[in-house]
Amino acid sequence: LQRAPGRTSRVSLVAGVARSEIETQVVLNPSIAKDSPKVVDTVEVSGLEKPVTAYCRCWRSGTFPLCDGTHVKHNKATGDNVGPLVLKK
Amino acid sequence: LQRAPGRTSRVSLVAGVARSEIETQVVLNPSIAKDSPKVVDTVEVSGLEKPVTAYCRCWRSGTFPLCDGTHVKHNKATGDNVGPLVLKK
Ligand code: FES
Ligand code: FES
Repeated sequence: LQRAPGRTSRVSLVAGVARSEIETQVVLNPSIAKDSPKVVDTVEVSGLEKPVTAYCRCWRSGTFPLCDGTHVKHNKATGDNVGPLVLKK
Repeated sequence: LQRAPGRTSRVSLVAGVARSEIETQVVLNPSIAKDSPKVVDTVEVSGLEKPVTAYCRCWRSGTFPLCDGTHVKHNKATGDNVGPLVLKK
């Protein structure tokens, strides 16, 4: 990395990684199937029973992979803005 | 909260909140539609074109709400184990 003499970076670096990048390097899933290397769920959409079904994207639902509304609590606690993926028949 | 004399909590507390709880209070979505109070996406499953479509649950896809595989990079960087919701026709 070359820099003009006398100029300093406007990006705060920790071990060469931008701070903003570090702040996004967080564990999203604190508890679901942590023995599994990757949690992938599959929905056969022909099997959907209700006209509308919400699936969790906050990794905090008590009924994961379904959404149970816990994202509302998460958003309030952290200032985040996540919500479910809604499947419509 | 009552505690037997001489016993100490095994949970580390910061301002009365368990540390493990704080560690889960992280922003999941660093960049998607941050002007929106809640990001909810809806899929009309009758409109699915491909036999299999993966939807992002890591909030880091360049093609959100679709999965573009970025969860692999996220999992490697953080030790997390998140993956997409896969819709099958
Ligand atoms: S509970 Fe996780 S998105 Fe609703
Ligand atoms: S890119 Fe986000 S789950 Fe695949």
